[in-house]
Amino acid sequence: MSLIVQKYGGTSVGNPQRILNVARRVVATQEAGHRVVVVVSAMSGVTDSLINLARQVSQNPSEREMDVLLSTGEQTTIALIAMAIEGLGKKAVSLTGGQAGIITDGVHTKAKIVNITPKQIHAHLKNEEIVIVAGFQGETTDGRITTLGRGGSDLTAIAIASAIKADVCQIFTDVDGVYTCDPRIVPTARKIDAISYDEMLEMASSGSKVMQSRSVEFAKKFGVVFEVRSSFNNNPGTIVTEETEDMENVVVRGISIEKNQAKVTIRQVPDRPGTAARIFTALAATSVILDMIVQSDSVGDTNDISFTLNKDELPKAQAALNSVMKEIGAKDIVTEEGIAKLSIVGIGMRSHSGVAARLFEAMAAGGINIQLISTSEIKTAVIIDEAKINEAAQLAHEAFGLSGKA
Amino acid sequence: MSLIVQKYGGTSVGNPQRILNVARRVVATQEAGHRVVVVVSAMSGVTDSLINLARQVSQNPSEREMDVLLSTGEQTTIALIAMAIEGLGKKAVSLTGGQAGIITDGVHTKAKIVNITPKQIHAHLKNEEIVIVAGFQGETTDGRITTLGRGGSDLTAIAIASAIKADVCQIFTDVDGVYTCDPRIVPTARKIDAISYDEMLEMASSGSKVMQSRSVEFAKKFGVVFEVRSSFNNNPGTIVTEETEDMENVVVRGISIEKNQAKVTIRQVPDRPGTAARIFTALAATSVILDMIVQSDSVGDTNDISFTLNKDELPKAQAALNSVMKEIGAKDIVTEEGIAKLSIVGIGMRSHSGVAARLFEAMAAGGINIQLISTSEIKTAVIIDEAKINEAAQLAHEAFGLSGKA
Repeated sequence: MSLIVQKYGGTSVGNPQRILNVARRVVATQEAGHRVVVVVSAMSGVTDSLINLARQVSQNPSEREMDVLLSTGEQTTIALIAMAIEGLGKKAVSLTGGQAGIITDGVHTKAKIVNITPKQIHAHLKNEEIVIVAGFQGETTDGRITTLGRGGSDLTAIAIASAIKADVCQIFTDVDGVYTCDPRIVPTARKIDAISYDEMLEMASSGSKVMQSRSVEFAKKFGVVFEVRSSFNNNPGTIVTEETEDMENVVVRGISIEKNQAKVTIRQVPDRPGTAARIFTALAATSVILDMIVQSDSVGDTNDISFTLNKDELPKAQAALNSVMKEIGAKDIVTEEGIAKLSIVGIGMRSHSGVAARLFEAMAAGGINIQLISTSEIKTAVIIDEAKINEAAQLAHEAFGLSGKA
Repeated sequence: MSLIVQKYGGTSVGNPQRILNVARRVVATQEAGHRVVVVVSAMSGVTDSLINLARQVSQNPSEREMDVLLSTGEQTTIALIAMAIEGLGKKAVSLTGGQAGIITDGVHTKAKIVNITPKQIHAHLKNEEIVIVAGFQGETTDGRITTLGRGGSDLTAIAIASAIKADVCQIFTDVDGVYTCDPRIVPTARKIDAISYDEMLEMASSGSKVMQSRSVEFAKKFGVVFEVRSSFNNNPGTIVTEETEDMENVVVRGISIEKNQAKVTIRQVPDRPGTAARIFTALAATSVILDMIVQSDSVGDTNDISFTLNKDELPKAQAALNSVMKEIGAKDIVTEEGIAKLSIVGIGMRSHSGVAARLFEAMAAGGINIQLISTSEIKTAVIIDEAKINEAAQLAHEAFGLSGKA
């Protein structure tokens, strides 16, 4: 008999019929001889309607009250799931985040879990009840309702799995797992059976948004093995776990692409200490998220500094740069839209040389020009023309043999 | 500076515009120099949608989970009201029933308040915040969410007013107060300025559903004076309070009518001990609510027993009676629909004789036949033909001088 945590996202519980489907799946898990804790999100669309309501009564609603408001979304789902399970003849009990013992700091709308005291969860499991916990929410030690921000329900599931020492943690979603590449772009892409935390983090930060990085980081920190799988079929999903020796035999685990990028180059920046700091402090103040940052080798007494960012944030970044251009004495700013990023990710590339070369050869074979290159220990990323990103992904997928078996 | 509790019902907070109106009213109260605690219901329609959702996932949802589900309705409103008040530049804080210290027993969907520990309310008031409390809900000592059943938000307001020793408790609703009779039936009906708890209770139990009896009973028990008034204008409402000597000068405070009644007469019931008990035990087991019960003086060794009830419950009552008819040996059952009840209510009738006579005269003057009569210390009720109920109400209203001033 295993202790299993199952998390179902907003799409999986998006209407009464789907809620009944989830209930059947949970009951089947219990009937297979397991104890089950279920973590659920708000029904899809509910959070948006609540935010819309808030906007109609206040231009700038306080974060404390947003948390009181939004937490009703998950509370609605837990009650409905519990009712549906009871309707199938099994014992179930719903718990809000606070009732489940999820203690957070007081940073409303993006609280961090500081502690979990799963006394209630254990008591109900002992009573042979299926326990349904509201994801995304917690409570401060002085009893205020908090929410965990984006990806909060995944985090709840992984944190509870850690706290109750669950044998299995399953993250049910609307995709079958993590793929070697987006199947809409690379038709030969296949589901990855197992992936390391670090690879998963690199995939997430490179555009494969199956899960938010913070949940994966938490799982890594506490050694929680979890599976990402679909709530709409019974296919096994992708196991996310510590890296194994076996994993290293695969040089590249997957390819991640990110469109809608833009590139900014500040030309002829005087080569003296503090200049780069001045530029990026100005950008940081705008809360624009930068991706790759590349500084060319200095030629003479200036160099060029380039960075990429989401193209929607370009105007904000430009405004910030314009305000410091005179002070730093650079020549000018050149921007370019219509670019995209392709990243190859794999812990195997640590021990294999020539990975970057193989990627560049694949791009060259397709006549694709590489504009920027950035590497980490387990990732190599290139910026190319957005019009060629699908072709590039297919070429790289082929070059690293990802269409074959892992 | 007074400490004021204001309660707003579902219609008063039924949409974002109305929520903003309530926020303005609350802020105006604070700006007039008062400390304010606001109790709110779910936005009108929300509770029904939640019940509808529950029915779609379970034919017989458990009461524990219904409470978890329904309590989200008021939680949504408190957050929105707090946001709206903050948007007007004032400090506000929302509290769920549990957070506000409303401790109930564990009878889900119709819990009773057993204690209020208003520590949080006091702390926030001291901090000059407007405190918004979710009506209709509480928490058991072991942390389960409960709801108080019908009229629960009024009860929350009155219980909090009692616990924090508020100077004023205002129940805002969609009517201007308690009227001498339903103005749709008696156009000369006028708003009553002050009414005693007992009169209010008799009016409520006789069909004037401004408030549920349990809230009035609670107010009476703890001596909470409250005002029923409209949230859509600034007219003073009706004060509900202990009776005063002055009140007794008015013989009849108001007239209440109740349509959709039915009468059941069991004829020739053998006149021996235990027979009536047998009949009404059988009826009680069906949970049918009976109103008037009249037993005629025995003629020979049998008598007739009549009672009235809502006509929708007639089939249930008949089935219950059929099962005991043989056992008790009565002759037969006669039922009649199309009847209505008219009640005159007033503490003044205690000390004035001839009240019933004046009512009967008024009915006689209109050629209205009286089928049953029932009296209590401060109420006289008659059952008449439903087709004549409006005329009867107008005649009685005139006969007791209710169109004039109090």
